[in-house]
Amino acid sequence: MDRSGEFQKWKAQSLSKADLSRKGSVDEDVVELVRLLNGREQFFTTSSCSGRILLLDGGLNGCEIQKQNCSWLLVTHRICAKDDVLSALKKARGDAVLKFEPFVLHVQCRQLQDAQILAVRSTHGLEVPLSNKGRLMVTEEYIEFLLKIANQKMEENKKRIDRFYSCLQLALERQETSGLRPETNKMTHPVYTHRRKRKTEKMHGQCNSPEKQKDLESEEDNAEISLSFFPENY
Amino acid sequence: MDRSGEFQKWKAQSLSKADLSRKGSVDEDVVELVRLLNGREQFFTTSSCSGRILLLDGGLNGCEIQKQNCSWLLVTHRICAKDDVLSALKKARGDAVLKFEPFVLHVQCRQLQDAQILAVRSTHGLEVPLSNKGRLMVTEEYIEFLLKIANQKMEENKKRIDRFYSCLQLALERQETSGLRPETNKMTHPVYTHRRKRKTEKMHGQCNSPEKQKDLESEEDNAEISLSFFPENY
Repeated sequence: MDRSGEFQKWKAQSLSKADLSRKGSVDEDVVELVRLLNGREQFFTTSSCSGRILLLDGGLNGCEIQKQNCSWLLVTHRICAKDDVLSALKKARGDAVLKFEPFVLHVQCRQLQDAQILAVRSTHGLEVPLSNKGRLMVTEEYIEFLLKIANQKMEENKKRIDRFYSCLQLALERQETSGLRPETNKMTHPVYTHRRKRKTEKMHGQCNSPEKQKDLESEEDNAEISLSFFPENY
Repeated sequence: MDRSGEFQKWKAQSLSKADLSRKGSVDEDVVELVRLLNGREQFFTTSSCSGRILLLDGGLNGCEIQKQNCSWLLVTHRICAKDDVLSALKKARGDAVLKFEPFVLHVQCRQLQDAQILAVRSTHGLEVPLSNKGRLMVTEEYIEFLLKIANQKMEENKKRIDRFYSCLQLALERQETSGLRPETNKMTHPVYTHRRKRKTEKMHGQCNSPEKQKDLESEEDNAEISLSFFPENY
C-alpha cells in the first residue's frame, strides 16, 4: 500500500471509532469545521472542543497533582449563569477552580505542507481558584465579575471559530482551484516553523489578502505551537 | 551546501543574534538545559522561559484584546511575596490579572526524529482577574491563598525542569552510545504524533525504563502539542 493509501486506511479506522469524550459527540459549534476537514482526503480530526467553562473540585493538592481526586461540578459550552456556578460551588469539598478553555482542534495531516494551515491553538484562558477545602474564598460579586469575563471570552472564542472556518474554507478552495498543494514550491526557507506570534490586529482582520490568507492558524494573542522542523523532504 | 550544513548555518546565525527578550538573557533555571541542547549539532533553542509569576494591568477590555494597553506591574521567576503583589496592585488602573506561566522552551530540530524528544510544553498555569477598572475585587486573604498556589506551582515547575534536564541528558547519552539517531528504525507506525496525553503518575516517576525514557516531553497534566504529521520519509 502506498503512503496515501496508508493514510486513508488510518483515517477510516480513526473516524469509525467510538467518540471517547465524556459527551460522546462533537461540540455543536465545531461540527461544520470538523466536517469540512474530514471531507478532504489530506486531513482528519482526532479530537476537538469548541471551548468551555468548567468548574472543577480538586483534591487538597489541587486537580493537577491528583487528577484522580478531581470532580467536575459544572461544564458548559455556552454562556454560563452566575446562579449555576453558585449552586455548583455548594457541592465543592476541596479546592474548586473555575476555568475557561478555548477552542482546540487536533488534526492529522497527510503531509507536512498540509499542516501549514492547520496549527490550531489559542490560549485566551482563565484558571481561577475559588475555594479552599470547601470554603469559598471570593465574594458573589467577584464571581459575577469573573463570569462576565468568562462569557466574553466564550463569545470571542465563537467568533474565532467562525473566522477560522471561513479562512480555512477559502484556503482549501484556492488550493483546489490552483492545483494540488501549490504551497510546496513556494517554501523558500528550509525550515517549517509552527511557532508563530502575531500582532493582534492581524488576527482581528479579515482573511482577504494572500498573506493573511496564508496565516490561517487560530493562534491568537499569546497562543503558540512550540515545535519546529527541518524537514528531510520539502 | 547540504541539508546539515544549512541547518548549522542557520543555527549559528540564530545563536549570534541579540537576545530580544525584556530581560535580555536566558533565565537562570534553564541556562544548563539551553546549553545542553545548543551543544548538540541537531538542536538549537530559539526562546525559553523558566516559568514566571506575572501581574498585568490590562486596558478596560483586558490584556488580550488590547495588548498595546497592557502594562507589567510585576514579574518574577522566583517565589513571590504577598506584599510585592499588594504594592504592585496599587498601581493598577485597569483590569489587573495575576498569571502563573510555566516553563516553556522552543527548540529547532534538524530532523523529524530529533523532535521526538523535544516537544516541550506544560500548561499548569493560573490566570486570575484581580481588579476591575482599578478596583480590587478580592480580599487580601484571597491574594495570600492565590500566591500560595502560584508559589507551589513555581516549585513544582522547577522540579519539572530538573527532571526534564536529567531525562534529556540520559536520552542524548544513550542515543550517542548506540549510534546516531537509533529511533529512526524503531518507528513502527507511519505517523509521528506530537500530541500526547499521559497519566499523571507516569510524569512523576523516574525516567529509568526504556518506555519512560522515550516519553521525555515535559508535557505534564493537560499539556499538549496539537499538531501531527504523516511524514514523507521516516
